[in-house]
Amino acid sequence: MNKSPIKPRTPPGVMELLPPDQIAFQRMLDTIRRNFERFGFLPVETPVMELSEVLLTKSGGETERQVYFVQSTGALEKAGDGLPEMALRFDLTVPLARYVAEHEHDLAFPFRRYQMQRVYRGERAQRGRFREFYQCDIDVVGKDALSVRFDAEIPAVVHAVFSELAIGKFTIQLNNRKLLRGFFEAQGVADGELQARVLREVDKLDKRGADHVRDTLTGEGFGLDATAVAAIMAFVEVRSTSHADALAQLEGLGEGNESLRDGVAELREVLELVRALGVPEADYALNFSIARGLDYYTGTVYETTLDEYPQIGSICSGGRYDDLASHYSKSKLPGVGISIGLTRLFWQLREAGLVDTGASTVQVLVTQMDAAHLPHCLAIASELRQAGLNTEVVMESSKLAKQFKYADRAGIRFVVVLGEDEIGKGTVTVKDLRRADQFEVARAELARALRVELAQPQVEVQR
Amino acid sequence: MNKSPIKPRTPPGVMELLPPDQIAFQRMLDTIRRNFERFGFLPVETPVMELSEVLLTKSGGETERQVYFVQSTGALEKAGDGLPEMALRFDLTVPLARYVAEHEHDLAFPFRRYQMQRVYRGERAQRGRFREFYQCDIDVVGKDALSVRFDAEIPAVVHAVFSELAIGKFTIQLNNRKLLRGFFEAQGVADGELQARVLREVDKLDKRGADHVRDTLTGEGFGLDATAVAAIMAFVEVRSTSHADALAQLEGLGEGNESLRDGVAELREVLELVRALGVPEADYALNFSIARGLDYYTGTVYETTLDEYPQIGSICSGGRYDDLASHYSKSKLPGVGISIGLTRLFWQLREAGLVDTGASTVQVLVTQMDAAHLPHCLAIASELRQAGLNTEVVMESSKLAKQFKYADRAGIRFVVVLGEDEIGKGTVTVKDLRRADQFEVARAELARALRVELAQPQVEVQR
Repeated sequence: MNKSPIKPRTPPGVMELLPPDQIAFQRMLDTIRRNFERFGFLPVETPVMELSEVLLTKSGGETERQVYFVQSTGALEKAGDGLPEMALRFDLTVPLARYVAEHEHDLAFPFRRYQMQRVYRGERAQRGRFREFYQCDIDVVGKDALSVRFDAEIPAVVHAVFSELAIGKFTIQLNNRKLLRGFFEAQGVADGELQARVLREVDKLDKRGADHVRDTLTGEGFGLDATAVAAIMAFVEVRSTSHADALAQLEGLGEGNESLRDGVAELREVLELVRALGVPEADYALNFSIARGLDYYTGTVYETTLDEYPQIGSICSGGRYDDLASHYSKSKLPGVGISIGLTRLFWQLREAGLVDTGASTVQVLVTQMDAAHLPHCLAIASELRQAGLNTEVVMESSKLAKQFKYADRAGIRFVVVLGEDEIGKGTVTVKDLRRADQFEVARAELARALRVELAQPQVEVQR
Repeated sequence: MNKSPIKPRTPPGVMELLPPDQIAFQRMLDTIRRNFERFGFLPVETPVMELSEVLLTKSGGETERQVYFVQSTGALEKAGDGLPEMALRFDLTVPLARYVAEHEHDLAFPFRRYQMQRVYRGERAQRGRFREFYQCDIDVVGKDALSVRFDAEIPAVVHAVFSELAIGKFTIQLNNRKLLRGFFEAQGVADGELQARVLREVDKLDKRGADHVRDTLTGEGFGLDATAVAAIMAFVEVRSTSHADALAQLEGLGEGNESLRDGVAELREVLELVRALGVPEADYALNFSIARGLDYYTGTVYETTLDEYPQIGSICSGGRYDDLASHYSKSKLPGVGISIGLTRLFWQLREAGLVDTGASTVQVLVTQMDAAHLPHCLAIASELRQAGLNTEVVMESSKLAKQFKYADRAGIRFVVVLGEDEIGKGTVTVKDLRRADQFEVARAELARALRVELAQPQVEVQR
C-alpha cells in the first residue's frame, strides 16, 4: 500500500530561506557581528527557553499574551495546574537582565555585550510579521551608574554597521526622554500616562494630518489648550539638518525646567562625542518626535531610518534605561543599547529589491571531464582549500556545458577545467564567470592567481 | 514594601557561558563553519519549531518521549484535544528532510548543505547531558542516486575541521553497513534485528570483557555457535594501522557474499579518494565494530575519536543513508553526512582543560588618563577600528593601574596610553600585555604597527 506523504511545510510566520538568500542573510549577520566586535562588545548567547517564572515577571501585559510555552511530553501528560514551566524568549532584553543578575559577580562592569539570536512572539499571522525572528542587540550595562558618554558610542556602532551593510543612505535619529518630559511638563502635560497618549496621537500626524491631530488634542478626550497644542506640534516636527543646527535647536529650547535642562545637557554631550567618534554629521540628526517605550527608556533614545525607504520605519532602535534587572537583583544596573530586528529588515530589503543574492559562498568549481581525472581534481581542490579558497569538486562527471551552467546558476565565480592537455602540461584553464574571461595557469600558481583575482576590487564590467 | 527579587537562573540542562568561554565557543563554531564552506557546503537555517505532524512522523519512539512541545498562550487556553501544534526540533536531520522535500524544485542536486543550530531533547537531567545543544551538520543529498565518491569527501571535511580546531590527535574511523551485514549473514546471523542485538552485546566488550560477551552470545538468548562467535569477536576487533593495512584487511575478508563484496568495494573506493584528497593516512582507519543507527544508515559509517581522550567517545559521527525524506516526498533522496555535537564536545574539552579562554575578541584598549583627552581617545579608537582592529575605549576615567588590570583580566592584548606628553608629540605608548613589552609609536603609524604585531605567529615568550 502506498502511504501518502506528509506535506513538508514550516509553521506559519517563520522565514526560511533558500541558500542564495541564506548566504546574503548570513553576510548581514557577519557584518553586524564584525562591527559589534570592532567596538569592543563581547558575545553572549542564552538558552532559547527561560523558566516561565523568570521570563514573565510582569503579569497580564501584551507580551504575556504572545508568549510561547514549552513543555516536554512528560509535562504535557501531567498538565493541568498553572503555567508550563518554560517559555521561549520574546526578546533579548529580559534574558540579558537575567544573565547580568545571575552572573553579576563574574562580570566586569561596564559590561559590554552583543547578542544575536532568534526570539519568539505569537503574533497574529500577517505578511511581514514574524513569529520567529533574529534580534541583534548591543548593550552597555553599568553597576550603580553609567556615564552618558556611553550613549555616544551607540550611534557610532550603528553608523559602522549600516555603512558596511551598504543598504543606502540612513539617518540615526536622536532624542532624549528627559527633554521630552521637561517639554511636556512645561506645556501643562505633566502626567506620564497623558504624555504617552499625546505622543500616540502626535504619531498619527503623517496618516491623519495636522488638523485631525490638533482637533483631537484640543477636543474632549485631552482638553489641552490651543497654545500648548501648537507648541507641541511645532516641537515634534523638529529635525536638525547639521551638527551646528542640532546644537542650535537645543539652544533654542531656552532655560526650561530641570528635566528639560538635563535632557539638553545629555544630548549636547552625546552629539559632541558622536562627532569625536568620526560619525559624519549628515548621518545623524535630532528628532524630537521619537519617544520609544515610554515605561522603559529614561534618557537618550534612538531610531534609524533609511532615507530612501521611510516606509520601512526604524531599522534599529533603542535607548538608555535606568535599571535593567530590578526584578532579579537589588543592584542598580543602568544601561544603554539598541536592537536590530534583522529578519524583518531582511524581508523588507528583499521586498525592495535591495538584497544581493548573486554570489555563492563557493568561489571555485573544479570540473571533471573524465572519471579517470578525479584524483587530479581532488588534489587541485585540496590545494585550493589549503590556500583558503572555498572549492567544490564535480564528483560525478557530466557534460562540461552542464557543469558550467551549474556554476553560473549557483553564483560560483571561477571554474577550473582540467583536460588531458592540461594534465600533460601541468596547467589548468580557469574561467572567470563574473568577468567572462579565461586564462591558463601553471597548476602550482593556481591558488595564488585566484587569490589575486579575488583581492581586486569588484568592478562591474561592461559587456 | 521591598518586593523580593525573583532568583535569576536558567532552566536545568542548558549550557550558558560567560564571555571568555563564549568567545572560545564562538571560535570553534567559526572554525567549523569556515571549513564546511571551504568544501563547498551551503548554509541552511530552519525554524526552531516544526509542525508536530511534520516532526513526529514515527510514532511512539524514544525520540517522541523527549520532544518539547510549543504552545502559544491562546492555544494553552483552548488545550485538551490531541498534541500541541508545534514542537522543537530534536535534531537537524528531520528538518533537512522536510527542507529538501519542501524546496525540492528550487534546489540543485547533489545538494550540499551545512547547518549549525541548536536542537532540543527532554533528556533526564544529568551532568554532561544537555537539553539544548548545538549540532553542526553537513550532508550531501542526491536525487535518485548519489555516487559513493561523496562518501570520501566527508572524512576530508572532518579532517580539515579537527586539524584546525587543534584539540589533539584524532582518528576518523570508517566502516560500511553492507560489509557488516554481509559478514554477519555469513556467520548465520541473517536477521537485522538479531544483528543489532549481537552488535549491542559486542559493544560491551570493553566493559564486560571477552569471556562475558562470548558466554552471552553462545548462551540461551542468542544461541550462536562457538565458531561464529569467535569469528565475530575477531572481526569487530579489526582496526587498520595504515592505508595499505586497510586495503589488506579488506582483501583479507575474501570473496564472501554479495553484500560483503559491495561493502568492500565501497570502502576501497572511499579509502582511495580520501587519500587523493590529501588526508594523512595516520588520521583515518577502518574499524569494523562501528555500526551507528542500524535502522537508518545503509553504507559507509563514520566515527571520530580523540586519540588521547578515548573516554570522550565519538566527537563526530554519521554515514550514508538510502532515502532522506520518504515521509515527505516520493522522490528518492539518498545522502551522506556527519554531525558534530558541539555543546557536549565543548563541555568535555573544557572538563579536560583543553579549551583556551585566554584571549578576548577585543584586541586593543585605549586608556583614558584625563577626561579632557577623551576626544583624542575616541579619535584614535576610530582610526584603529577603521583599520580592522577590535577596540574598546575607557569611557570613564580611573587610575591607570586599574585600567591595565582590567585589560589583563579581560585578555585584551594591547593597551594604548595617551598622556599630555604623547598628545604634544603626536605619539602614543603601546603596552603589549602578552609579550610584556612596550613601545612608543607615531599616532599615524599606530594601526599599522599593531597589525604587524598581530600578524606575527604566536610564539610563547620565555619570561
